[in-house]
Order: sequence, then C-alpha cells, then structure tokens
Amino acid sequence: MRQIKKEVDRIMISFASDYIAGAHPQVLKRLMETNLEPLPGYGEDPYCASAKEKIRAACGCPQAQVEFLTGGTQTNLTVISTLLREHEGVVAAETGHVNTHEAGAIEYTGHKVMELPDEDGKLMPDMLEGFLRAFYSDENREHMVFPGMVYISHPTEFGTLYTKEELEAVSAVCRQWKLPLFVDGARLPCGLAASDITLPDLARLCDVFYLGGTKAGLLFGEAVVITNPGLNHDFRYLIKQHGGMLAKGRLLGAQFEAFLTDWLFLEIGRKEVAQAGRLREAFLAKGWPLFVDSATNQQFPILPNGAMEALKDRYSFEIWSKVDEGHTAVRFCTSWSTTDEDVDALIGDIQEL
Amino acid sequence: MRQIKKEVDRIMISFASDYIAGAHPQVLKRLMETNLEPLPGYGEDPYCASAKEKIRAACGCPQAQVEFLTGGTQTNLTVISTLLREHEGVVAAETGHVNTHEAGAIEYTGHKVMELPDEDGKLMPDMLEGFLRAFYSDENREHMVFPGMVYISHPTEFGTLYTKEELEAVSAVCRQWKLPLFVDGARLPCGLAASDITLPDLARLCDVFYLGGTKAGLLFGEAVVITNPGLNHDFRYLIKQHGGMLAKGRLLGAQFEAFLTDWLFLEIGRKEVAQAGRLREAFLAKGWPLFVDSATNQQFPILPNGAMEALKDRYSFEIWSKVDEGHTAVRFCTSWSTTDEDVDALIGDIQEL
Amino acid sequence: MRQIKKEVDRIMISFASDYIAGAHPQVLKRLMETNLEPLPGYGEDPYCASAKEKIRAACGCPQAQVEFLTGGTQTNLTVISTLLREHEGVVAAETGHVNTHEAGAIEYTGHKVMELPDEDGKLMPDMLEGFLRAFYSDENREHMVFPGMVYISHPTEFGTLYTKEELEAVSAVCRQWKLPLFVDGARLPCGLAASDITLPDLARLCDVFYLGGTKAGLLFGEAVVITNPGLNHDFRYLIKQHGGMLAKGRLLGAQFEAFLTDWLFLEIGRKEVAQAGRLREAFLAKGWPLFVDSATNQQFPILPNGAMEALKDRYSFEIWSKVDEGHTAVRFCTSWSTTDEDVDALIGDIQEL
Amino acid sequence: MRQIKKEVDRIMISFASDYIAGAHPQVLKRLMETNLEPLPGYGEDPYCASAKEKIRAACGCPQAQVEFLTGGTQTNLTVISTLLREHEGVVAAETGHVNTHEAGAIEYTGHKVMELPDEDGKLMPDMLEGFLRAFYSDENREHMVFPGMVYISHPTEFGTLYTKEELEAVSAVCRQWKLPLFVDGARLPCGLAASDITLPDLARLCDVFYLGGTKAGLLFGEAVVITNPGLNHDFRYLIKQHGGMLAKGRLLGAQFEAFLTDWLFLEIGRKEVAQAGRLREAFLAKGWPLFVDSATNQQFPILPNGAMEALKDRYSFEIWSKVDEGHTAVRFCTSWSTTDEDVDALIGDIQEL
Repeated sequence: MRQIKKEVDRIMISFASDYIAGAHPQVLKRLMETNLEPLPGYGEDPYCASAKEKIRAACGCPQAQVEFLTGGTQTNLTVISTLLREHEGVVAAETGHVNTHEAGAIEYTGHKVMELPDEDGKLMPDMLEGFLRAFYSDENREHMVFPGMVYISHPTEFGTLYTKEELEAVSAVCRQWKLPLFVDGARLPCGLAASDITLPDLARLCDVFYLGGTKAGLLFGEAVVITNPGLNHDFRYLIKQHGGMLAKGRLLGAQFEAFLTDWLFLEIGRKEVAQAGRLREAFLAKGWPLFVDSATNQQFPILPNGAMEALKDRYSFEIWSKVDEGHTAVRFCTSWSTTDEDVDALIGDIQEL
Repeated sequence: MRQIKKEVDRIMISFASDYIAGAHPQVLKRLMETNLEPLPGYGEDPYCASAKEKIRAACGCPQAQVEFLTGGTQTNLTVISTLLREHEGVVAAETGHVNTHEAGAIEYTGHKVMELPDEDGKLMPDMLEGFLRAFYSDENREHMVFPGMVYISHPTEFGTLYTKEELEAVSAVCRQWKLPLFVDGARLPCGLAASDITLPDLARLCDVFYLGGTKAGLLFGEAVVITNPGLNHDFRYLIKQHGGMLAKGRLLGAQFEAFLTDWLFLEIGRKEVAQAGRLREAFLAKGWPLFVDSATNQQFPILPNGAMEALKDRYSFEIWSKVDEGHTAVRFCTSWSTTDEDVDALIGDIQEL
Repeated sequence: MRQIKKEVDRIMISFASDYIAGAHPQVLKRLMETNLEPLPGYGEDPYCASAKEKIRAACGCPQAQVEFLTGGTQTNLTVISTLLREHEGVVAAETGHVNTHEAGAIEYTGHKVMELPDEDGKLMPDMLEGFLRAFYSDENREHMVFPGMVYISHPTEFGTLYTKEELEAVSAVCRQWKLPLFVDGARLPCGLAASDITLPDLARLCDVFYLGGTKAGLLFGEAVVITNPGLNHDFRYLIKQHGGMLAKGRLLGAQFEAFLTDWLFLEIGRKEVAQAGRLREAFLAKGWPLFVDSATNQQFPILPNGAMEALKDRYSFEIWSKVDEGHTAVRFCTSWSTTDEDVDALIGDIQEL
Repeated sequence: MRQIKKEVDRIMISFASDYIAGAHPQVLKRLMETNLEPLPGYGEDPYCASAKEKIRAACGCPQAQVEFLTGGTQTNLTVISTLLREHEGVVAAETGHVNTHEAGAIEYTGHKVMELPDEDGKLMPDMLEGFLRAFYSDENREHMVFPGMVYISHPTEFGTLYTKEELEAVSAVCRQWKLPLFVDGARLPCGLAASDITLPDLARLCDVFYLGGTKAGLLFGEAVVITNPGLNHDFRYLIKQHGGMLAKGRLLGAQFEAFLTDWLFLEIGRKEVAQAGRLREAFLAKGWPLFVDSATNQQFPILPNGAMEALKDRYSFEIWSKVDEGHTAVRFCTSWSTTDEDVDALIGDIQEL
C-alpha cells in the first residue's frame, strides 16, 4: 500500500515552478459564480472596479491607478515603454528578468536595458548612485542612452529580498536623480510574506509596481499599481497597442477580487514561504550548501550529482547551473498547490539519501 | 409575476457583443477537471498537444503548425510581424480590423497597413490584383512600402462572408504574386456555420489563419494554424517577445480541447448564426433596412430613433453609426450564451413597437 | 555647328528632378573656404550657430529651435517620432510623401500614417475637421489610433500650393483640436517664391516646419524650425538615435549660411518657378493639358505618346502615369542648375513638334 | 614673430578628433569637378558604380555588394537590423561603439546588444566561444535573446587592433556557430595601416564590414561591403526606410572614387598612424603611462593634471577619464589634416613641460 503511494508520488510531486497548477479554489469559484453574467468587456465591468478598489485600499493609496494584464513579460514591456521617452533606457540588475528571460521584449519596444552588476540579484543603491553620477559627469552623454527609469524585482530572480532600508535607499537615489522606480512583483505575495516591506511601503517608495497573480494562484493576471499621478497617462492605450487587452477583462477582475478578499494573496505567499523554509532547513541539515540563500519560495541547493539523480525519479525540479564536476545547483519551487505532504515526502527522502 | 420577470429582463438581456459572458459550460468543465494537475508551462503540456492534434485533424492538414494565443490583436500583430520583412507592409481592406480597431498595434511592429477599398468589408480579388499590378509597374517602387502579405477576415468586420469562389480567387492572386495570405478568424466559427468554406478549404487556400475562441465561448484563446511549411519559423519566439506567451499554457490547451471535441465550436457558431438569422428576419419584417446585410452573428439594422430608444431600456446593443437625423444603424450580436428566450423576447418587443 | 550643339544637348539637358546637380556655386564656395578650419563636431560649430541665427531672423521667430538634418525622409521620421506619443498617428493626405514615398519610414518608428483624401495633393481644412469630429464622437476610439499631429507639405507632391487663407484654416483646425501642425518644406523655396505664404507666416501658423535645401541647391540638408516652445525637447537625441547626426555638422552650417545669405534660397526658388512657368505656358500653347496644374517647379503635362518619345531623345524627364492608350502624364522639373538656354531649347523643340 | 606664431598655434592646433576638418583636397577636387553634371539620384550614377568597382577590386572580392551610407551610427543600425531576425540580438564587446555611443540606435531597431567583457576593447574568441556554448546549453534559451550576429570594430574604441590570427579565430567561432560577423571599420584606414590585416582578409573572414570615410578625410561616407552572398538582400530598402538614402548619392560615389584612387585611404591612414606613433613615443619618453596602448591614430596618455592644464591652453584634446586625484587619461587624435608641424609643436611643448 505504501509502495503504491510511492509510485503515485513519483509521478505527482512537482516542485518545478510556481505555475504548475491552475487556480486556487477560491479564485476558480469566483470565476464560476460570475461566468454567466453579461458584462462589458475590456476591464469596464464591476468586478474589475471592485478589485481595483480593494487593491487601492490594501496599498493605502486611494488615488492610485490600477490596471490588470495577463502576464509578467507583457506587464514589464507595457510599463517600461509607457514610462520611457524614446531615447531613454531602463536601468536594471544584469540578472534582472527583463535583461535575461524576456526574449528581448524590452528592446523590441526600442529601449535599452542598461545592466548593472548586482548582489545576489539585488541592484544596490550605491551601485546605482555611482552609475548615475558617472553618467551625468560624462561629456559624451548626448551620444549615450539616457537612464530613464529604474527596474528592480522583489523578490529577485534568485528569491532574495530587499530590506525596507535598502528599498528606501534605492528609492531615495531614484528621487534624487528624478527617475521613476518600477518594482516587478511577479512573486510579490512571497516577498510580502517574507520581508518587512508592505504594500503601503511599495506605494510610498516606488512609482509603479505590480502584484503578481500568475505565480501565486491565479490562472493568470498581474495588477499594475501606478502610484505617481504625474506619470504618463497613456497606459491603457499601450496595453491595447501591445496586444495585452483581454476582451473578457472580467476574468482579471473576478480573479483579483478573490485574491484580495481576506488577504488570500498573503495567505498563499505565507504558505509557500513556510514550506520553502522547511525545505531550506532540510537541505542545510543534509549538509547541502545553498547556491543563493533565498528567503522565499524558490530554493537553490547545491546537490551532489548522485542525490540529484535519485531525487529526479520522484520529484520535478529545475537544473539551475553546474557548479563543478560532482555538484549541480538546482531549484525547488513551492506553489500555492504544494501540500504539506508533498514537503514531508521530499524532506523524508532527503533524510534517507 | 410576469411583470417581475420583465423587470429582470430589462437588466439581463444583452446583445452588446459576443464576449459578454464567460466560458461555455463544456469549456469551463475541462478547466476545472484539469485544474490541479501539475503540468509544464508555456504550452508544453499534453492538453495543448492534444488540442493541436485535433485542430490539425479538423483541418485535414497533418503537417500544420498550431500555436495558441490569448487574443485577436495579439494574434494579428504576432502573425504579421512574423511574416513580414522589415520593409514590407500588409495589404488589407480599409475597414479591416488591423486597420481600424487595433490601436496601431501593427504599425507598432514597424509595418504599414496598406489599405484598399472594400465591398461591405471584403477585399475583392480584382481590387487586389489591380493594386499589385500598379505597384509592380511603378518605377519608384524602391521608395515605397512593398506589399509583403495579404490580410482578410472571415467573417469581415461587418459580418459578411467570402464565398468559396471569392476566397479561391483571392488566394490565386496571392499565389500569383507570391504573397502569403492570412485569414483572421476571430469569428470563424460563425463563418464556418454560415458559408460553404470549411477548415480544410482554409488550410488549402491560405498560408496562415486562426480559429477564434474568445468570441465563440472560450474565456479567451485563438488557435493559429500555419499551413505553409515554408514560412518563417520564429513564431514561438515572437509570441514570447511580444508578451503573448501564457505561463499556464495549459489553459489554452484545455479550452481548445473542449472546443474541438464533438465539433463544439461549430455547434456554437451554428446556434449564434441561427439566432441572428431570426433577428434579421424580424428587422426586415418590421420594415427596418439593414446597414450591411450580414449572414452571421452580427446584425446591423437601421432603427428609427424612437424605436432605438425604446429598445435601449430592455436590451444592450451597440450604436454603429448615425444614418440621418431620424435613423441610426445599430449592432445586435448573438453570443454562445444567448438563449432562444432572449431572441424571442427581442422579436416580441420589436413586433409590439 | 548647330548640329553639334544639338548632339550635346541630347546628352545634357535634364529636367529629371531638382537634385540632378551638386551644389550652387555660392554654397560650394562656402564649403571650400571653411574646409580646413578645425571645428567641433555634431553641429556645435560657429557656422551652424550663425546659420540658425539667420533662419530665426528670416522667420521673425527669435525663440525658435533650429536643427539641421541631411535628407527629407530622415527629417520627416525624426520630427514625427519626436512629436507623437506611442499610441498616436500622423494625419496626412493619402498622396502625401510620408504615406507614399518613404518606404515605410514613419511606420518603422511605430506610428500609423492616417490617410485622408486630398484635393490635388492638399489636405483641406474641412476634410480634416470632419475626420477629427468623427473620431472624437466614435465610442470605440480607445481601440483606434489617436490622431496626434497633422502633416502637410508646401508645395505638395504635385507642386500645388496652399493659399495663406487655406493654411490659416488648417492651422485653426489643428489648434482647435490641439494637434501640432508640421509642414514638410522639401521644396519650400519654390513654395515661398510662388505663394503669398512667408517664413514668418509658417512660424506663426505651424508648430514645426522645415526649409529644404537638397532640392534647392545644397549638396544636402534640411533646416527644421521648431516654433512651438512647448514641444518635446528630445529632438537632438532622436536625430542621433535615428542615425541622422552628421559628425561634420559644419557642412550643414556652412551650406545653410550661404543659403540664407542675401536670400539665396529665395532667389533659387524664384528662378526655378519662373522657368517652370515658361514651360507651363509652352505646354498649354501646344494644347497639352496639365495632369495637375502646378504653380511651382514641377510641371505635369499630358503628352501624346509620339511627342513623349520624340522629347525623350533630347531631354530627361519622369514618366508620371499613363492617362490613356495614347497619352501619358510626365513630370518636368526645373532645378537650381537649369539654365534659361535649357528652357529655351525645350520650348523650341515643343513648338517644332 | 615666434611669439605671434605661438598665439596662432594656441587657437589652431586641434587633436580633438579625426573629424575636425572638412575633406582631403583630392576628395574636394573630385566633388568640384563633378558638381555640374546632371546625374540620376539615390546612388545610381556612374561615380557610385565606379567607386564600388574599385572597392570590390581592392577587396579581391568581385561578387561583393557595396553600398554607401553617410555616417557610422546609421551604418551600424542599418547593417544590424538587416542581418538580424526579430528575436535575435547582436553580440558585442561591452565597450563597443554600438553599446556605448550610439544613443540606443540599435535597440531602437528592436534588437538587444548582448554585451561581453572585452580586453582593451577587443572581443576575444575564447570569450565569444564560451558565451555561445553556455547559451546553447541553457534549457531556458527559448525565453532568452538569441545571438544572431557578432559585431566587432577594427580598430576598437580604444584604438587597439586585432591580429590576423585573432580575427581568424573570431571568424572561425562565428562560422562554427553560423553567426554572421560584422566588422565596424569607422577607422579602418588606420587599422589597415597599422596591422597585418588587409581588405582581402576582411572580405574573406567576415560577412559584412565597412570602410569608414568620415574619420579619414571624406566630408562624410562609409562604404559597406557585403561579402556573404547569402545575406538578406533587403539592404537598400532598409537604407531608405531608416532615412539613410542620400538624394544626391553621387556625393558618396565621387568621394569614394577619390578615396580609392591611388590608395588614398591607405595613405591617409598611414600618415595618421605615423604621427600618432610619434606622439606615443613622446608621452612614454616623458614618463606618462598609457591608459590603453593604442597602435592607431587615437592615443590615450595619462597626464598629471598640471601638465594637462598647461597643454589645454594650446591644444584641443578630449578628457577621457579621471584616473586618480592627480592624473587624468586624455585622448589625442591625429587626423588627415594634422600636419607634421602640429605634431612637432606638441612634442616640443611636452618636452619643455
């Protein structure tokens, strides 16, 4: 009997990503309840209005403009091309998502990603300050790309987090140099769960950010929050022009309404982070070092190749990078659909190896 | 009691568009059934594979490449920017969707929409032939935009249809001048239901087309069918680069699987067309002329303004254009969610006016 | 002896365009005089400064920003992409240069050319007003390209001219709808010579225009005059970004200095117009109708094919369009380098035919 | 008397760049000789034909396609956007001109500049090989920008040179990975003068390169040589579309004809290099180290700030970068117009300091 369960587990347990399953039951329920209502398209339905209101309230920012898009790359390219003037670029960590895993989407809109060295995925304030100071003291700058905004993500590509102090420092540099700060929140629910930074902090410290749903239990959906009222107001036109406007915008409204109800997004983030934390302890207890020490739902242990092969039979996870002949960094992700039993099983198998 | 029902009807009956409701029950069911399965992202799941196979089979074109996108503008801009070389434009009817209602999405990819006069929304073969002949006899053509492909939609923006003979003629002109033909099928289920053109005809006569789901009972989704194996193979990269790649690609796979099962898409198209046909007869019986005579799910009667005002209290529909001081062309759309009772009610009210 | 001269003439007399020769002697002289001076690049030399000052003075617009570019298409694409926001298009006559003979350069910058019917090349104020009124009353306009500026040329592609009254009316419509007006002046020296519109009128009535040099005796060069101080100030960056910034910007400065000295540009324009006027009279005297009645240096007679063939042996000119089986519209252009003897010879041969 | 000469020198001697003066006398003479000939536009004149033929002959590559453009950034953006498919980027040294001093022109065409670390400006073959190997072993590469071509310049931004062996190795890596190699030759005349690499070597080892004229004695002009016949043939259309096609293309033809006659370009390159070599020796003799050791016409000594200030009164040169509190790296450029007396004067003043 236990043997059989094992067999099933071999097929079933995936830590491959945080978008392995469909929607959280609360979200799916809301979609079903509203399915037959005749509603206007393109985000002009009451569910979008209500979800936007809940987001503004959660951010403590009643004047914020909130818009919904379907995915992360789409959101990044639309925000960035809205904020930048033609000859400007976006400053980002060299490991930032926009610089590495968006297939050139930003450049397709005509703008350079101006990459700076990072620390475990984070763009540090002194690095940013130094870059800007050097740029504005360069006499040839008229022939260079102008820094027009700053992009960071929280958590970063490596699951690491800015402290509130660091975010305040990045924000201060941006304001000193009059550059809008955009925070990519594809995994923000985990970021909120694991750091001392809150939605009102984000609303206060940056000019635009988004609360990601795709990687936290929605079928799809990212909520862009524009807190700086002075920013370009063409955003909705650009969503349409870039092919990002959903005819049945209600789907985003209904999902985000459920996501915001009773702080579901935060509950999902907390669970993912807690489960990942248990995995992290198990890796360390086993003596496996961490490629990057992440406080969120992505964990990057360095595995002996033998252990990696053994685990592969029972669990899905991602190869991150080869460390040396005998060791490989891998990524285990917890997801809204990860059960405590999934985590128990993996920890048990790690201990038995 | 009947009075109360009337009250409810006043709020409820919408002929405003074909995307007023969520998904068809069969489609929603498939999404729920598969919701918890852990699956790979970006369209590499078995539901996408199976749906693609069903589409290839329905088209009688086993070698076709099938890809899923989430919306019409996104599909048009991705297909067109994939097919064209940099200095080429897309030839289209001046009333074509890409020329009128996509917020400049095609131009944003760097390409001109080369507009030609149409007949009730249709780009006729002789007009196309004449344009191409004139272009290639122009000695200044090196300074002009080169026609690089042809775009038509079936049904057109006005719900009109190409006959098979007309489509064959358009296709023949395209092949003579070596231009790929792309058919926008945002409402193709209705087009298939109301004309003698079949999916295998489309596979045979054009190079790329899409089967639209958003306007025929899916939450969202368009299935692009690339039948010409010689075309640019960068399509998947461009989906990603344009922000159109869904992390949970399974949603498209599962929906299209349901859509293709037992020819559900055709059943939906037929029902919409039949209901619209009943409306058309009622308009004509009332003596209201048609702005354009559409054979599909969009109907464009010209209403006396008094009648329009009266109907507005009970039904949602779209103002199309002012015809004269006393008359207005409007659009009534049937949708997958339109019931026969909805149609009965509207016809009854028309007769009573 | 006369026979020999005829032989030479056969090879020599070109009315093919207004850019058949190099530079006017006064212009070339200025280039030679300044050739060895060591000067800063990119337009920061004293000749550019002095030429800009002369242009501002000639326009009676001391606060205008003046920038130099090398060619017409480059100028049009740089001005238009500077003025428009991402989701906006440029309204132009369907026969306008930007819509017909710039190989899609405007669309390459991501913007639609929104074409309107014209009258002999001119975009008339009532047509423009009607278009704008219709656009702003369209409830679907959020899905459409927004008109963001208006482009006209003076003279037009057909050599026709706006009257001052017409230009004032076009300008008034633009101001009413808050759209910048851009006047393409590729052949403006002829336009100034043949109409009652002056440089100060242009400075007063439009927001940006350019004074074309390439087609009026410079080696190359167009002087953009930005009279509306509220416009986007990124212009110089965009020149660079679009590859239009000349390292040896002095070449533009020195040429325009000569061009503005003693109103040389106007003298050239007047001579071209006078010579073209003599040709026009000769065509009409011969009973050859005009395809378009142009008041400037381009003339479009409709020739019997026999006469066309006979003239071809001795003169270069451009085939414009076939009118019927026996007649063809052609274009004869006068240029700064056209001599009165060239004109005499052509008129003599026309009379003898 | 000597005092007066000193005064004049103070104003006159510029080592600020290699585009401080107009055209070499041989080039200017050719322009004047041909000034009045009526010729067809857009590069279809006999001087362009003849200059192209001379270039093909000098390259030992009779089948090469040669096209002329007016400046370096324009050339780079046109070549790169012609060679790349939409989802591809150009691999370049992080200090490469396209990555640093073209105001985002490449990104404006929609393509990422994929920067790699360099050695004194050079992209070394092992670095390139390692990057490509890593890219093609990355399982996420479908979400990344594809390397579509390689860009190097010879000389580099720092005046350094590839050896023939190095260029052969870079070329071999490119061919192994099927990437076109493009060599930016903005200062190629100096590169040819100072290295063992010849025009036939470039024709053999790369797919496209250009011979720069602007920085070697032409008013303006770069000659693109496309030696790989399999490359995209849309190049001329893209020149036009990007605003780079000169109406009076004859200016490029006539200048390049003079440039190629009696190997004038090589003579100019040799003189510049020889003069720069004398400066280099003087800097080293004075005990001033070199920021980068350049073998071509740009020299980068590190000056004590006092010496820098003293020299500033008499010579124009460019501040390159601050090295420490007391020292600054500067750039001295020799130009076609630099005289041996200019060099003597500077060397004398250095020795006297």
